[in-house]
Amino acid sequence: MPNELLVSNVIPMRTGPTDIRIADGRIVEMGSSLAPGAEAEIIDGKGQLIFPGFVDAHAHMDKTLIGLPWHRHEAGPALLDKITHERDLRRDEGIDSYAQSSKLARIAIAAGTTHIRTFVDIDTDWKLAGFEGVLRTREDFKNSLDIQIVAFPQSGMLVRPGTVELMEEALRNGAEVVGGLDPSTIDRDPARHLDVIFDLAVRHDADVDVHLHEPGELGAFSIELIAERTKSFGFQGRVVISHALCLGGVEDAYLSRLIEMLLENDIAIMSHGPSGLRPVPSVKRLRDAGVRMCSGNDGIRDAWGPLNMPDMLLRAFLIAYRNNFRRDDEIEMVLDIITQGGADVMGDESYGLAPGCAADFVLVSGENHVEAVIDRPARSLVVKNGRIVARDGE
Amino acid sequence: MPNELLVSNVIPMRTGPTDIRIADGRIVEMGSSLAPGAEAEIIDGKGQLIFPGFVDAHAHMDKTLIGLPWHRHEAGPALLDKITHERDLRRDEGIDSYAQSSKLARIAIAAGTTHIRTFVDIDTDWKLAGFEGVLRTREDFKNSLDIQIVAFPQSGMLVRPGTVELMEEALRNGAEVVGGLDPSTIDRDPARHLDVIFDLAVRHDADVDVHLHEPGELGAFSIELIAERTKSFGFQGRVVISHALCLGGVEDAYLSRLIEMLLENDIAIMSHGPSGLRPVPSVKRLRDAGVRMCSGNDGIRDAWGPLNMPDMLLRAFLIAYRNNFRRDDEIEMVLDIITQGGADVMGDESYGLAPGCAADFVLVSGENHVEAVIDRPARSLVVKNGRIVARDGE
Repeated sequence: MPNELLVSNVIPMRTGPTDIRIADGRIVEMGSSLAPGAEAEIIDGKGQLIFPGFVDAHAHMDKTLIGLPWHRHEAGPALLDKITHERDLRRDEGIDSYAQSSKLARIAIAAGTTHIRTFVDIDTDWKLAGFEGVLRTREDFKNSLDIQIVAFPQSGMLVRPGTVELMEEALRNGAEVVGGLDPSTIDRDPARHLDVIFDLAVRHDADVDVHLHEPGELGAFSIELIAERTKSFGFQGRVVISHALCLGGVEDAYLSRLIEMLLENDIAIMSHGPSGLRPVPSVKRLRDAGVRMCSGNDGIRDAWGPLNMPDMLLRAFLIAYRNNFRRDDEIEMVLDIITQGGADVMGDESYGLAPGCAADFVLVSGENHVEAVIDRPARSLVVKNGRIVARDGE
Repeated sequence: MPNELLVSNVIPMRTGPTDIRIADGRIVEMGSSLAPGAEAEIIDGKGQLIFPGFVDAHAHMDKTLIGLPWHRHEAGPALLDKITHERDLRRDEGIDSYAQSSKLARIAIAAGTTHIRTFVDIDTDWKLAGFEGVLRTREDFKNSLDIQIVAFPQSGMLVRPGTVELMEEALRNGAEVVGGLDPSTIDRDPARHLDVIFDLAVRHDADVDVHLHEPGELGAFSIELIAERTKSFGFQGRVVISHALCLGGVEDAYLSRLIEMLLENDIAIMSHGPSGLRPVPSVKRLRDAGVRMCSGNDGIRDAWGPLNMPDMLLRAFLIAYRNNFRRDDEIEMVLDIITQGGADVMGDESYGLAPGCAADFVLVSGENHVEAVIDRPARSLVVKNGRIVARDGE
């Protein structure tokens, strides 16, 4: 591994061509006609587009079925049908979370992903098997992919005694974030669910990320409860609400009040261009108001469904499609969300395409960055911490 | 061109492997271990998946900007902003509808499309230039792609005197379908707009296809007016309502009545997994009720927006995504819509994967037909009327 890398003639979004000098894993200089050091590896960017590394800020690496024989989907429509179906499948078929998360990591890296926040199911059936598998994958890929682990009570926490203790064990052993899930619908006790989540977070100095599928006023009430706890525990800037579908399903005046609560408590929203016929949160409304946003690929070909793929440019396309974004500036905003927006949520202060930042970036061919969202060309080069980790989608 | 083709070992959806014998452009036999005739060209299907040719039943071939330098999208949000922007762009940049529709035809064929119903803008600025360009393209591609032309008053009809006469000229010279457009919003006179459309259709023995973006009760009222005219003119089975977004935005009891009207008059719905935050028609609800459905790629990289691509497997993915389809049987239903559903609307009675049908089909590699919607592999072979028209996506 050379100490110095010089990438010439690449085009960042919204600016003109530049060279990039990298040393010891960091970007040290950007500008035109940079001279390489004597030992530098030189890469001719040939006018390709450069993105900072893609950030998948909402993944479920432990339970993907990718690379396994096709799973025929026949589960019923309700959320609980899917959770039960998944727990049964995992028990009956013995999914190896180490092997599966490793496969997913490799595909994600080849597609230009340099950061993943992954939820890991913790329940009284599977216990810490999923967590331990992903922990091994994180160790294996520590030089090519930043993986942040969320201890996630997918099957409920209060309704399954013993779950909280398992989550604590994960938090002591490497999980950095406490996950919550539909506090009313699953655990039937929103205040206590969130009290336990925040208590875990405070005691382990962990961030919080709550899956919130609850619709309309029920979900909005959960946002109020989350905002109240964020404030009382001084957790501003450390909480994400994922999906937050209710932000697409309440009246406009109430939506404005909810957005105020998010801003006052610096709570970020993860939205990924949700599937479905119902209204979903407006990315433009949230971003224009100043709400921090990130996105992610969610479950990849798992018991929940087959449609997602581990490609953040496809994710950008789906966000744009779901939000009916047609203007270039709107699609560029989506690209900000799948890069800097995710890095903010993951707390990576070294992230970015600028001198001093970690050298994490992706090159692709194309006319401009918006077209890359639509054409999704192979990633010709992926660099993580100044080191080449993938070429030409491999 | 050989008179006989034998394709061995291919897998149709929902059945097991088969061979297919083709002669004079038609499928003559399907079954296992078919013996080739002495003169037959033999293709080893190697267990690939076979689809009947994809049907793009809603295209705008005349105005795609595909293959031209990137058009930066900055148009305003309203429908009229986009229509005006497009007319100006077309006038100022002089889009060559022959060249553009030819490029699109080539890409579509390579992606396995064997049938396209295309709208062609007719207005008092552009007159018949778009129509004439697509007519030439249709002639050029007559052996590799069925193109059906809709005379379409994109800029309004009553509000632009002279448009109806131009539409008549197109109908006399090769357009097979009369197009309508948001009868209230654009022409400000829904009853008269539809009277003129149906009068044209009756006099030219042409089918009808109405773009209906109008939301909620306004769009639903247009459906009522269309159903009334379909009945009084005996046009059952000859009318499509495209988009029909209002079917996602009315109360359930009214939706049931609208569906009854569609069924009574055998009116088909074109839906393509519309972008946007608002509710859209439920494909499952419509299909379960027995409504005929088709789909299409709509405008490809044109003045309206950059997101669509000329690939009907991507379209199937977007329909599935927008409808939150996760079950295999639901996604198979979408595949029926982009194949047989479109052929029904285009009136192609020779369509299908069965003895006696025209030999129009596509081969792709993959584990099953549902996975092909998600992975969208290159089309390894495309056959139209028994003749190979594309290989490996070229």
